[in-house]
Amino acid sequence: MQEVYRSAFFNSVKPADPFFAPRIKKCLEVTIPTAMRQCVDTGRIDAFKLNWKPGMPNQPHVFWDSDVAKVMEGMAYSLALKPDAGLERVYDEWVDLVVSAQQPDGYLNTHFTTVEPDGRWKCLAMQHELYCAGHLIEAAVAGYEALGKRKLLDCLCRYADYIDSVFGLEPGKRRGWPGHEEIELALVRLYGATGCERYLKLAAYFINDRGVAPRLFENKFDPGNKQADRPVREQTDAYGHAVRAVYLYTGMADVARETGDGELMKACLRLFDSIRFRRMYITGGIGSTFMGEAFTEDYELPNGVSMYAESCAAMGLVQLADRLFNATGDAAILDVLERTLYNGALSGISLSGDRFFYSNFLEVDDNHHCFNAGYRTRQPWFACSCCPTSYARFLPQIGRFLWSVRGDEIFLKIPAAGHAELNFDDGRSVSLRVEGGYPYDGQVRIVVETGGEFTLNCRRPGWCHGFKASFEGRAVALPLRRNWQAGDTVTVNIDMPVEIMHGNPRITADLGRAALTRGPLVYAVEERDLAFPVRELRLPSGAGIQLAEASDLPPGTVVLEGEAVRESFAGDALYTAAAPLRTGAHFRAVPYALWQNRGDTNMAVWLPTV
Amino acid sequence: MQEVYRSAFFNSVKPADPFFAPRIKKCLEVTIPTAMRQCVDTGRIDAFKLNWKPGMPNQPHVFWDSDVAKVMEGMAYSLALKPDAGLERVYDEWVDLVVSAQQPDGYLNTHFTTVEPDGRWKCLAMQHELYCAGHLIEAAVAGYEALGKRKLLDCLCRYADYIDSVFGLEPGKRRGWPGHEEIELALVRLYGATGCERYLKLAAYFINDRGVAPRLFENKFDPGNKQADRPVREQTDAYGHAVRAVYLYTGMADVARETGDGELMKACLRLFDSIRFRRMYITGGIGSTFMGEAFTEDYELPNGVSMYAESCAAMGLVQLADRLFNATGDAAILDVLERTLYNGALSGISLSGDRFFYSNFLEVDDNHHCFNAGYRTRQPWFACSCCPTSYARFLPQIGRFLWSVRGDEIFLKIPAAGHAELNFDDGRSVSLRVEGGYPYDGQVRIVVETGGEFTLNCRRPGWCHGFKASFEGRAVALPLRRNWQAGDTVTVNIDMPVEIMHGNPRITADLGRAALTRGPLVYAVEERDLAFPVRELRLPSGAGIQLAEASDLPPGTVVLEGEAVRESFAGDALYTAAAPLRTGAHFRAVPYALWQNRGDTNMAVWLPTV
Repeated sequence: MQEVYRSAFFNSVKPADPFFAPRIKKCLEVTIPTAMRQCVDTGRIDAFKLNWKPGMPNQPHVFWDSDVAKVMEGMAYSLALKPDAGLERVYDEWVDLVVSAQQPDGYLNTHFTTVEPDGRWKCLAMQHELYCAGHLIEAAVAGYEALGKRKLLDCLCRYADYIDSVFGLEPGKRRGWPGHEEIELALVRLYGATGCERYLKLAAYFINDRGVAPRLFENKFDPGNKQADRPVREQTDAYGHAVRAVYLYTGMADVARETGDGELMKACLRLFDSIRFRRMYITGGIGSTFMGEAFTEDYELPNGVSMYAESCAAMGLVQLADRLFNATGDAAILDVLERTLYNGALSGISLSGDRFFYSNFLEVDDNHHCFNAGYRTRQPWFACSCCPTSYARFLPQIGRFLWSVRGDEIFLKIPAAGHAELNFDDGRSVSLRVEGGYPYDGQVRIVVETGGEFTLNCRRPGWCHGFKASFEGRAVALPLRRNWQAGDTVTVNIDMPVEIMHGNPRITADLGRAALTRGPLVYAVEERDLAFPVRELRLPSGAGIQLAEASDLPPGTVVLEGEAVRESFAGDALYTAAAPLRTGAHFRAVPYALWQNRGDTNMAVWLPTV
Repeated sequence: MQEVYRSAFFNSVKPADPFFAPRIKKCLEVTIPTAMRQCVDTGRIDAFKLNWKPGMPNQPHVFWDSDVAKVMEGMAYSLALKPDAGLERVYDEWVDLVVSAQQPDGYLNTHFTTVEPDGRWKCLAMQHELYCAGHLIEAAVAGYEALGKRKLLDCLCRYADYIDSVFGLEPGKRRGWPGHEEIELALVRLYGATGCERYLKLAAYFINDRGVAPRLFENKFDPGNKQADRPVREQTDAYGHAVRAVYLYTGMADVARETGDGELMKACLRLFDSIRFRRMYITGGIGSTFMGEAFTEDYELPNGVSMYAESCAAMGLVQLADRLFNATGDAAILDVLERTLYNGALSGISLSGDRFFYSNFLEVDDNHHCFNAGYRTRQPWFACSCCPTSYARFLPQIGRFLWSVRGDEIFLKIPAAGHAELNFDDGRSVSLRVEGGYPYDGQVRIVVETGGEFTLNCRRPGWCHGFKASFEGRAVALPLRRNWQAGDTVTVNIDMPVEIMHGNPRITADLGRAALTRGPLVYAVEERDLAFPVRELRLPSGAGIQLAEASDLPPGTVVLEGEAVRESFAGDALYTAAAPLRTGAHFRAVPYALWQNRGDTNMAVWLPTV
């Protein structure tokens, strides 16, 4: 199977829209520097000095290497997007430090080298050795692709070579699979950067022997939560730990694409379908329970604080959907990418760039008990700090998700304003500008800056009922192929009315409730914008809803305002037969991804209807 | 503080109503014999032979003694209600066996004597030693009070004397508190049976030093889940493990009553208020989360399978409310007793008497993941089998909850049909008959069978908007004192229309939903009674609802029937902007306590309104 599309190189698309551009800017200015400081302050960097001894503070944790790797990946992107000599000096120092921690045989893991020297590969399912290796590989490839630096890449090739000498079906090798997937997609990425087929073959081994390999060296573990109680090709529903799941599926898509394994791709698409058609929040969040941070059952999507919808899982779903669109060319898959990116993925980080949600709830009420009190508000860091470090590497890559290329066709996946320099397979390149206020405005202008013959395409969103493209004043159909001249402009009008959305009735949590969306955005009502508790807000079926500019949110943000109903009860009985008092009530709703940026407050996405 | 009322002796009230009487019959005929067999088959009885050795099967568990004790308590009540020579022989054998397991110093615990001989009193907070002791004491008192048998009572007095020699503030004694409360109320009961003040004093010690005593001999525990992170008098909200909580509060009420400790009673009432006004399901269920089987926060009352509402907790709440009514004479407390007894307590056992819910959910949908698959349907037994054994001792005692006595006033707490023989404080007794179809019919006749001068009172339920008492054709006010003649009949008419109940809007799980009640009964819609999924049922505010007799439920059962709305969606999208299709739909609702007696099916108590 050949890749149908490939995503733009992260650095070739520069968003200048009201939604992503400020987030990327904050990531470079705040998120990455903050995460770097946290890695230093918590001992994660010093761990690579390998001088930790029992009794000392900051015992290297099994997942610490991954945090450093993810921040280094982000640093590489940052340096490519915005060169900075000081940052580069630190980056190079960290590369040296990481490389210095490599053992003579190629092994590289701070925890198992210092804390459990006898534990190497002893508990694949519970520990994070191969997961950390995967993130280090991604960091190494990023440094090579973004900056042309080979030192870390060479180091990680040695580590990958060593891993390849340990695991596999060949005589003398050990069979096994990682409890936390990541190595699979990382090895395919390493194969892409190096052309070394051994890495692709090892990735395919980890995918194909998962749930098959005898579970050696394991004691206490739950294979179900790790997608390993049966072979991946026999898995039909997304289950277990949601982050691990989407990392695995991304690895499956990557291996299937590179090896032409149609059956594996089909299994991957079937798992993706189980997410998008039955197990995903309207925000693109995934993981219905904090227990095991996991998927549960079809349509079980509770909105309160027992849900999970981890930030990392949403970012992982964006990445997976991008891979699957590229592989299939099915634009409907981009609806999931877009919905998740604009809502459940970006909700996890504050506009200030230094506060993070682990879980992205759809309803928060101050009466409600959170399994972890710190999860109700965005936090600067976590003991298990995967989400903050994921943003450090995810946000600089957003450009990837806006454009894809196939042959000499360019495909605008998300029409956010900005600049793109896209390379065709034949070596030519084209430069374009996207203008407009998307996602707040559906009028988009695609301006060609350098001409040439190529095909221009733009996704028609699945949520859109009216979509018109025009060129030189005349309606045109997309894709449109022509010999483009500099200045040629295609205008796309995407109708984006406010929609009152209903959940499938199998989602009993949403019964009798509706959510507001407009275009790709899901809206949330924050109690601070009401004159009464959000729990008393009821949405009439014919609610008149207007668009409004917000002065207390980033420039360009469109909020919804309208007249609804407040339903209040006299007295404070726990249960009452008295009918509630209904009065008219003004309400305001803000994009879900922007909630809790003006202080902590109660919030609801799904509003009871009247 | 003197007890204002005391509840009738269990054996002096014989229900003959359509609700309790068949349950009690099944308990004697099925539940107790079945639980006895389980105690034998699982090794719980053999454990008292003290011959378990490492490597043998059926290692005595830390809570096994309590299961045997609770079943023996039920056997004693059963023998009093319905003598049976065969059962009595087994009962006497079991008494001999339990007594034979007592150690020379009085200690009596199968687990710590055989499995962890060095563990005695070493982990009070995590283990169940004092909990088991409490249940053995209750069994011993029951055998003495119900059957006049002293052997087990004497044995447990020796154990209690030994416990008293170990724990307390006096020099040479150890301070501590049990992780699972029960010993406190049991010791007060032992005091009541023996008159020995030492037991009352020890109960008061355990209550008063709880959350105060240094936590000796403890390692890993969560004092919050065990109501021990602060002194009980400083506790204001019901928190932690719900069963433990209500057992503690019952012990507090008992100690407060017997010692005249008004401050302690006030603390107990404050905790009870936190349950009834903010932390209780409409069914009387308590415990909002399966995590720690615990209370969470005010108004956090999710209806799906993440809730708990353990059967034992509901039975404990009935017991607590009975104590608090007796202590205060506040009839509003009986609304909680009645609501819980008729709904969340009896829902936990099948009509057949041999299947049990651990958790009593308010909404079950087959799409929904249950943290323990076995909790969705009633089970014959559990590894941790507290609920089945609780029914074995709870159901035979239901008579206690129908009548209370104060001086020469008799108070009809729940007007279920049946016979009562009540003893006044002055030694006289009175015999009465209650007639009628309560809880399905609000017309109640109280017929005096033996005359005499006394005061007759009957509770006016808090849910009732019309309550009329009449005597000899004339309206009368209650309480009514007179010199009653045999055959005198007071008629009470309790208005019980169907009510559409709303939750306090702070209960976000119930927003936009309503529940149906009639009299003390909460109704549930079972999917098997609909022509479509229960999740598609919507209740219009003006729904016309009729009463109907049910041919597929026990004789006399009144179900609700009416016309509502079915809301269905074309297609199977996870989220849609298409408005749902509304059609008229017939529905039927059955008493919550009777649900899932005609096979497994989806169910909902809170119905979305339209």
